[in-house]
Amino acid sequence: MYNMDKLYEAVAGRGHVCVGLDTSAEYIPEKERRLSLSDAEAVFAYNKTIIDATRDIAACYKVQIAYYEEMGLAGLDSYAKTLKYLRERGALVIADIKRGDIADTANRYARAHFEGEFEADFVTLTPFLGMDSIEPWLQWAEKKGSGAFILMRTSNKGRHDFEYLELKNGGRLYDAVGHKLSELAAKYTGKYGYGAFGAVVGVDTQSEEERREAAAIRAKLTNLFFLIPGYGAQGGAASDAALLLREGNGGVVNASRSILKAWQNSAVKGADNDIAARAARQAVIEMRDAIRNAALNSL
Amino acid sequence: MYNMDKLYEAVAGRGHVCVGLDTSAEYIPEKERRLSLSDAEAVFAYNKTIIDATRDIAACYKVQIAYYEEMGLAGLDSYAKTLKYLRERGALVIADIKRGDIADTANRYARAHFEGEFEADFVTLTPFLGMDSIEPWLQWAEKKGSGAFILMRTSNKGRHDFEYLELKNGGRLYDAVGHKLSELAAKYTGKYGYGAFGAVVGVDTQSEEERREAAAIRAKLTNLFFLIPGYGAQGGAASDAALLLREGNGGVVNASRSILKAWQNSAVKGADNDIAARAARQAVIEMRDAIRNAALNSL
Repeated sequence: MYNMDKLYEAVAGRGHVCVGLDTSAEYIPEKERRLSLSDAEAVFAYNKTIIDATRDIAACYKVQIAYYEEMGLAGLDSYAKTLKYLRERGALVIADIKRGDIADTANRYARAHFEGEFEADFVTLTPFLGMDSIEPWLQWAEKKGSGAFILMRTSNKGRHDFEYLELKNGGRLYDAVGHKLSELAAKYTGKYGYGAFGAVVGVDTQSEEERREAAAIRAKLTNLFFLIPGYGAQGGAASDAALLLREGNGGVVNASRSILKAWQNSAVKGADNDIAARAARQAVIEMRDAIRNAALNSL
Repeated sequence: MYNMDKLYEAVAGRGHVCVGLDTSAEYIPEKERRLSLSDAEAVFAYNKTIIDATRDIAACYKVQIAYYEEMGLAGLDSYAKTLKYLRERGALVIADIKRGDIADTANRYARAHFEGEFEADFVTLTPFLGMDSIEPWLQWAEKKGSGAFILMRTSNKGRHDFEYLELKNGGRLYDAVGHKLSELAAKYTGKYGYGAFGAVVGVDTQSEEERREAAAIRAKLTNLFFLIPGYGAQGGAASDAALLLREGNGGVVNASRSILKAWQNSAVKGADNDIAARAARQAVIEMRDAIRNAALNSL
């Protein structure tokens, strides 16, 4: 059984929310931050709070390693502890590391992130170098079900620089990436029809044309499970995210700051992690329900 | 003064060799490995040996983080120590991390690798997400001269999957990347005419057509300094690497295994780090002279 099959079941049972643990010390209530020995410790303690408060209503968690790397070795220790805490509780974890390297180097990265201290259920990858930067990770799908999400069409403004370039033989760069990924996924199809690895497809829908584009991507790549960033703080709405889902499943929608910083909306004086936990839980419930309703409406 | 200016001067004074510290424990003489407390410690000790033996004949060093990440936190500690050791000796260091992320995340990555425990003089970046994944790093060029090499046209087989895709408006994907980079570099031009950041352009020349392609890339992107992988163990030759140089400068050529494992060629029984150091020095001298001669021949 691939981890992607488990993710499908998690979505069916608990909804589409992927909680992004892009945890910066400045998102943590001042009171708690002062109680900790270091920012790295405060971040891990805060992550535990958020995880405990959302575990039963989140499909999975995505941990953005940059936020930890910024704090050096102590931060990476906090990163490792966060992954361990999640996995001990049976939560599915996406390591957002966007690695992209070849041959022996890719094998070493895969060992680093699919076993040992930094073990995750999924990683994110960058396809620029070609499919030989993706393939070395796949032996892990066979070995222990490990998965990956490969950048295909993102939600940042800069996506127009390269991802959207029109190709001589038709389509855009992201179509070519999607096509290659879908072809490869067909060799690693799980029990629900999705490949062991999927694609990162962002939500940033500004126009009717972009809605059509999102629907076309989803209709074409039926065997790719999507990791969908860009929701909430980054501007995407539930109805736009729903365009990238398929029969009520087939994708998880990531949100980070809107969950981690939810407690700041009510600006409670003397806020602590308990207050942050309740606010985060409420934010996930609202997001889960909004996406679920939008997905039902589009069926 | 940009770090890229310092690199130009290093090439002028010491040749084009970039020593790749992609150090795996299995590259180290068995005797030394047994003396160490851990593989991570053995790797750092070996790196010091190689650095001391090549410092005066290498333009710079490239440290591939995957080899350290594979060993977990202890490995990343060894990575940090290697960078520190190099910088304390005034050696220029390229952190081969191939990061590619946007906005706040990119800023955090930049802080992680341009200051603090993991500080390097240059990083490598991946352009897939667009120029907003490159731009956040540039404030560091202004602040302290920090540089970057952005993947443009690599030497792996998979480069044909995406980098070589032909575009509707002419050229290939790598041309589009090169064009954008050259445009941006023009805003950060150093004292020798090269931008504060450059491009990764690999050497893997199989045919006359590929020689013409390499020469065309070099002729077109006059303000980009190149980091050139693919030499030696990966197949490229001195005359091919020279095609990517410009007036005897404008690029560094990376080699890793052919230097780190040079001692294995003579298969000395009971080899130790002293023997490895002499073999590494000899390998760098031969590579430096081969490239210098090829560069002179092509002037």
